[in-house]
Amino acid sequence: MLPIAKTLKQGKRGILERLDAGEIVIGDGGFVFALEKRGYVKAGPWTPEATVEHPEAVRQLHREFLRAGSNVLQTFTFYASEDKLENRGNYVAEKITCQKVNEAACDIAREVANEGDALVAGGVSQTPSYLSCKDKAEVKAVFRKQLDIFMKKNVDFLIAEYFEHVEEAVWAVEVLKESGKPVAATMCIGPEGDMHGVPPGQCAVQLVKAGASIVGVNCHFDPDTVLETVKLMKEGLQAAKLKAHLMSQPLAFHTPDCGKQGFIDLPEFPFGLEPRIITRWDVQKYARKAYDLGIRYIGGCCGFEPYHVRAIAEELAPERGFLPEASEKHGSWGNSLSMHTKPWVRARARKEYWENLKPASGRPYCPSMSKPDGWGVTKGARELMQQKEATTEQQLKELFQKQKF
Amino acid sequence: MLPIAKTLKQGKRGILERLDAGEIVIGDGGFVFALEKRGYVKAGPWTPEATVEHPEAVRQLHREFLRAGSNVLQTFTFYASEDKLENRGNYVAEKITCQKVNEAACDIAREVANEGDALVAGGVSQTPSYLSCKDKAEVKAVFRKQLDIFMKKNVDFLIAEYFEHVEEAVWAVEVLKESGKPVAATMCIGPEGDMHGVPPGQCAVQLVKAGASIVGVNCHFDPDTVLETVKLMKEGLQAAKLKAHLMSQPLAFHTPDCGKQGFIDLPEFPFGLEPRIITRWDVQKYARKAYDLGIRYIGGCCGFEPYHVRAIAEELAPERGFLPEASEKHGSWGNSLSMHTKPWVRARARKEYWENLKPASGRPYCPSMSKPDGWGVTKGARELMQQKEATTEQQLKELFQKQKF
Amino acid sequence: MLPIAKTLKQGKRGILERLDAGEIVIGDGGFVFALEKRGYVKAGPWTPEATVEHPEAVRQLHREFLRAGSNVLQTFTFYASEDKLENRGNYVAEKITCQKVNEAACDIAREVANEGDALVAGGVSQTPSYLSCKDKAEVKAVFRKQLDIFMKKNVDFLIAEYFEHVEEAVWAVEVLKESGKPVAATMCIGPEGDMHGVPPGQCAVQLVKAGASIVGVNCHFDPDTVLETVKLMKEGLQAAKLKAHLMSQPLAFHTPDCGKQGFIDLPEFPFGLEPRIITRWDVQKYARKAYDLGIRYIGGCCGFEPYHVRAIAEELAPERGFLPEASEKHGSWGNSLSMHTKPWVRARARKEYWENLKPASGRPYCPSMSKPDGWGVTKGARELMQQKEATTEQQLKELFQKQKF
Amino acid sequence: MLPIAKTLKQGKRGILERLDAGEIVIGDGGFVFALEKRGYVKAGPWTPEATVEHPEAVRQLHREFLRAGSNVLQTFTFYASEDKLENRGNYVAEKITCQKVNEAACDIAREVANEGDALVAGGVSQTPSYLSCKDKAEVKAVFRKQLDIFMKKNVDFLIAEYFEHVEEAVWAVEVLKESGKPVAATMCIGPEGDMHGVPPGQCAVQLVKAGASIVGVNCHFDPDTVLETVKLMKEGLQAAKLKAHLMSQPLAFHTPDCGKQGFIDLPEFPFGLEPRIITRWDVQKYARKAYDLGIRYIGGCCGFEPYHVRAIAEELAPERGFLPEASEKHGSWGNSLSMHTKPWVRARARKEYWENLKPASGRPYCPSMSKPDGWGVTKGARELMQQKEATTEQQLKELFQKQKF
Repeated sequence: MLPIAKTLKQGKRGILERLDAGEIVIGDGGFVFALEKRGYVKAGPWTPEATVEHPEAVRQLHREFLRAGSNVLQTFTFYASEDKLENRGNYVAEKITCQKVNEAACDIAREVANEGDALVAGGVSQTPSYLSCKDKAEVKAVFRKQLDIFMKKNVDFLIAEYFEHVEEAVWAVEVLKESGKPVAATMCIGPEGDMHGVPPGQCAVQLVKAGASIVGVNCHFDPDTVLETVKLMKEGLQAAKLKAHLMSQPLAFHTPDCGKQGFIDLPEFPFGLEPRIITRWDVQKYARKAYDLGIRYIGGCCGFEPYHVRAIAEELAPERGFLPEASEKHGSWGNSLSMHTKPWVRARARKEYWENLKPASGRPYCPSMSKPDGWGVTKGARELMQQKEATTEQQLKELFQKQKF
Repeated sequence: MLPIAKTLKQGKRGILERLDAGEIVIGDGGFVFALEKRGYVKAGPWTPEATVEHPEAVRQLHREFLRAGSNVLQTFTFYASEDKLENRGNYVAEKITCQKVNEAACDIAREVANEGDALVAGGVSQTPSYLSCKDKAEVKAVFRKQLDIFMKKNVDFLIAEYFEHVEEAVWAVEVLKESGKPVAATMCIGPEGDMHGVPPGQCAVQLVKAGASIVGVNCHFDPDTVLETVKLMKEGLQAAKLKAHLMSQPLAFHTPDCGKQGFIDLPEFPFGLEPRIITRWDVQKYARKAYDLGIRYIGGCCGFEPYHVRAIAEELAPERGFLPEASEKHGSWGNSLSMHTKPWVRARARKEYWENLKPASGRPYCPSMSKPDGWGVTKGARELMQQKEATTEQQLKELFQKQKF
Repeated sequence: MLPIAKTLKQGKRGILERLDAGEIVIGDGGFVFALEKRGYVKAGPWTPEATVEHPEAVRQLHREFLRAGSNVLQTFTFYASEDKLENRGNYVAEKITCQKVNEAACDIAREVANEGDALVAGGVSQTPSYLSCKDKAEVKAVFRKQLDIFMKKNVDFLIAEYFEHVEEAVWAVEVLKESGKPVAATMCIGPEGDMHGVPPGQCAVQLVKAGASIVGVNCHFDPDTVLETVKLMKEGLQAAKLKAHLMSQPLAFHTPDCGKQGFIDLPEFPFGLEPRIITRWDVQKYARKAYDLGIRYIGGCCGFEPYHVRAIAEELAPERGFLPEASEKHGSWGNSLSMHTKPWVRARARKEYWENLKPASGRPYCPSMSKPDGWGVTKGARELMQQKEATTEQQLKELFQKQKF
Repeated sequence: MLPIAKTLKQGKRGILERLDAGEIVIGDGGFVFALEKRGYVKAGPWTPEATVEHPEAVRQLHREFLRAGSNVLQTFTFYASEDKLENRGNYVAEKITCQKVNEAACDIAREVANEGDALVAGGVSQTPSYLSCKDKAEVKAVFRKQLDIFMKKNVDFLIAEYFEHVEEAVWAVEVLKESGKPVAATMCIGPEGDMHGVPPGQCAVQLVKAGASIVGVNCHFDPDTVLETVKLMKEGLQAAKLKAHLMSQPLAFHTPDCGKQGFIDLPEFPFGLEPRIITRWDVQKYARKAYDLGIRYIGGCCGFEPYHVRAIAEELAPERGFLPEASEKHGSWGNSLSMHTKPWVRARARKEYWENLKPASGRPYCPSMSKPDGWGVTKGARELMQQKEATTEQQLKELFQKQKF
């Protein structure tokens, strides 16, 4: 058996140092989904005020990901831009300011990162300002406000993630790049490209030109679809003779039936996704496939729990030479079942078994795929919705007043 | 909207005081499964040494259940009998004694219970001693060792849970009853009864006669099957003119395809159960059905995460008059989606939607049901295995040497 | 390879001669379903006026079953009692009298039976007279009218089939028995018994006591359920120390989700049953299981097409020593694929392949099981409906006026 | 209700006369699959010697399609080229020559066509000669031999169908065109195009330039895929400013999981396809969609039974003004259930019910989709196989000797 990783608390090397050396960097999992299930995040707003309200819960989740093998702890600042928090204001107590949320997020991530070999990444994501057609300067100002806090708290590097429009992602990268720190950028798009129809290869090119050292995809789609999209990004970069590290952070849900906008349109989003949750073995297949594709920053997004991240670390343990701490409590490929009293359960203590299992849903009255919602919308209206112009509540109301869904 | 529960830190009423008054008592969820996914429990041994190794992780999970509405925090002492811990010795560092594990479990549960309106229940479960044919005195001695700690730590009441043989369960109840504290007893059986073929109604009668004030079922089967079994227990008690409170703590997995021994025989156990995980809406249906059946101690077992427990509390909030703390972060029946930008997502913000949804698995290459394993075993051997005589490793080897599974 | 059966046109032995000698007798398949798909029978009324209107179509189907291995050709007289044909009068041209339909059915069956080694069986089935509470004499008169024609046409033996109430079946057997010809009797019931709750074992006893030499089950349920029910009949007869031959003629549809009244209550009945159609390999498993259970009259009912009957004959060819004529056009267990150009199709030319195949539905948006309809009906009303008293249209209207389904 | 069609036995208008006038022409269904189930065709060879051996069975099937609404009766000459019949020689009795098979096919089709308003179409399909690399002259000679018989028997028009390579299809059209009769040409390809990679649009252009007046797709794929492919053909013709009538004759199986070569690669082919069979309501949706796409020659291929063809005729009855004869035995959209005794069955007598039904498979242990076989083949070998060069048995052996499937 490979050794369990020794925790390395100081003298850490930076993100690019690692990636440039060809090392595998393991990301973390999905905070909003995991903390929603634990009772600290509200689905719908999905805002991270828990950093202030319940720091112990956020800290514990960071710790679990670290223990599972994460080399990066992302500050829990998803949707923590000032415009978003204001927009969702009714959910956030008055005194929990944007600044407090972001600062607390940095402090917690740093505290846990110091317990092991992990870096802290400050993250920004898509903004209501962009969607409501604010201009470039205004949108950039929103990002800059978060960046100021990240700089003050001295995060190790920066991530612009969960962008549906490459234009906004480029603006985010440009702002983050002002800091001088390494910048990663991931979009929540599929093979069809961004919401304005820019294909993945071209998105990647624009992001690298804007200053991103690492590009890829996060959220909205399952591992297979995310890898297909990153492959298109890779090919776009190669065609443009640009170099960048690749990154993937997919959903931990099977979503072969998604449309262009991903899992949000599936009828099961967000409160009926359970039967779609991927197993640890699905994750191992994903990790291997990502590695074979040349991706070296491999993590997860919504649905990824600590044991999913551990599965990445276990699959790639031969390449890395060590296992994560949490593997103290996990036998690779089910080998902890080898002492079970029932012979047929002992027979499950092997790779071939889990690799080939087609797990039953236990739900004979349910289908295996769904039609994404929103099909009743006329094409024109739908296209408008996919663009930023249609997204103010008032415009939506007008557009959809006479339509059935 | 109903008010969020005020935390009540003192002057708590006991378990029987509550149940006798007709109140609903909400149990907690499944520690070994939840902590396995978080990286602190090893599947296979399923032992709770984390109380010593990682108390912060155990404490956090208790806190999440409390916040979700649990009125009982069970000490994390599952499989923590001395014989079990020794049996699984290779997984447990030398100095983590049975005593330390149990004491730490009590301390953590009490600490968190003090943060709200919850009682601490000390729990014992089935022992290797019984399965390897130790006599009544020896088996009782094992339970007594744990009971001593529970008494020293002054838990509020006691639970004998996860028993497949009513004989052993009765012994456990008899020991626990010596303490003078209220005793609850739940078996992990289905409608076919215990492993010696004693039907549920008769099991209930024996447990109540032995001193249990609360009886029911935990683990091994899905909510529907558990409720069917508790119903049989209720009818058995009625026929015998005995009175007891009823309790149910099922799996959070759909298992309509189980055999007599429950989900352990399903090919997906324990690492491929994801597609079977029940939704919060499934839990609400379970809670309602349990309530209608007259069950007043309603909780969960393996697979139950904090949000599942919250679903019990939300379903029964009209009867109780209040919501749990964690409902600050949850709109009943999806109403937190009412502000979503997409009209078809807003259309999900209502009870009828989630109640009627047949969630897709996203796995078109997988079936919806499995055949339980162990079917290749000759009937005779299988029956022997289901009895205690066959369960020593040596006997198993002999029995199965020439058989295929 | 086993020889193809020589056609035997004369000197045929009777049904009891064969069964008493321990031979396997192969029944035929489902006329109303097969001819509905061919355009000659109307779903709903399900009446057999095609014997007069389109004799060539009925003759061709008989011929196909004969060729497939059937040793019995049932006259196509299902629902051909006078009261039924009148009840469905609007579908039947004036001059197509009950007598003409029954006579033509006998003539066609005899003509084809003469082409091979098959017997002609005259069949009667449940009547509207019984359901509308006519008395015993009246109901018997209806059966006697059909029997007169069977006697005039000199069929080889008689079958009372598709009875939901054992009382009516007994009356039918009593009438048929007057003829002096051997009588078989099958009910369309499941393990729960007849519509008045008489269990299968007791039904069998009553039928044998009334004079049936062969008893069993036809229609309403899939092969597994039918065999389970025949097993209960067998046990009932054994307990009563009665002797009779056993017979099974199940649906060619998978119906694990049926309620007590069988496939009629399934939402897919009768125009959406396609995904439930059983394969030839399912039939081979059924034939083997039936044989092992001691059943020697093995056939099919609704859904059974000629190739399904051939599968019975092929599965039991080793026991019988010969194959049916239609096996000229069929390689056992797919061996006709052994010359295919694609290696992976050639790989399907073997028993293990087809035996173990779990065929996909190609319908990822559909479930694998359905809830039977009629669940919205109050229990009381439903029970009434299941009894004869409730079945006149007027009574039904009154019962269901204020109910939703 | 619309009137039932009067049979029109003389003065029939030709195929182009009808299509040019904008009329809908309904094709027939799949002979080899239907007759395999009836016991007259052997799966594997799939040859039509039944025209000589069992003419009554072929005649009856033609009659059923005519009655169901078919306006075209295709001679049962599939795979009846001399080279194919020789190649499969062991299955065909010596004296059943190619000439006899083809002549009998023409006679039977004509006899039945004379009973109603249907045309006779002589059909040729892909040849072993082409696959084994015979030259153009040799392949054309094979087609010409069949054409001579069609001319002698004076069929009404000609169809070149089931071609995987457009080159061979063009050769066939060129030969058939020599006759002066109208020629239709359909390929068994999907949206990815022919086996050499020629896209559907280009295939259509080549076929029209070669002389086909009607082009389209038959077999290998389900209705949705066939319509998608015909749409590409239509677009190709429009871009090339060519005019032709469109035709579709898909499988009656759901095959969303097919690869490029269609249903033959599915693990269920050909003996486990039952759960994929489409319902009559699926056919109505197909017919409507085909009509809306501008297709006017609408029929079916393998799996289409008479009731499927009737469903085309019923769906398009409003446009045509009449129903087919077989609708005497069918209530549109299930209305024949309106007199059922059970209210919940009566509730199925309406369009909305059947249109929205998601029929269950009754197979909870089976998946909903399969992976096509042949995936273990190396890409290079697979590509070779898809081309004609690799298809001799010897070459195949060499290619696949060291590979697993």
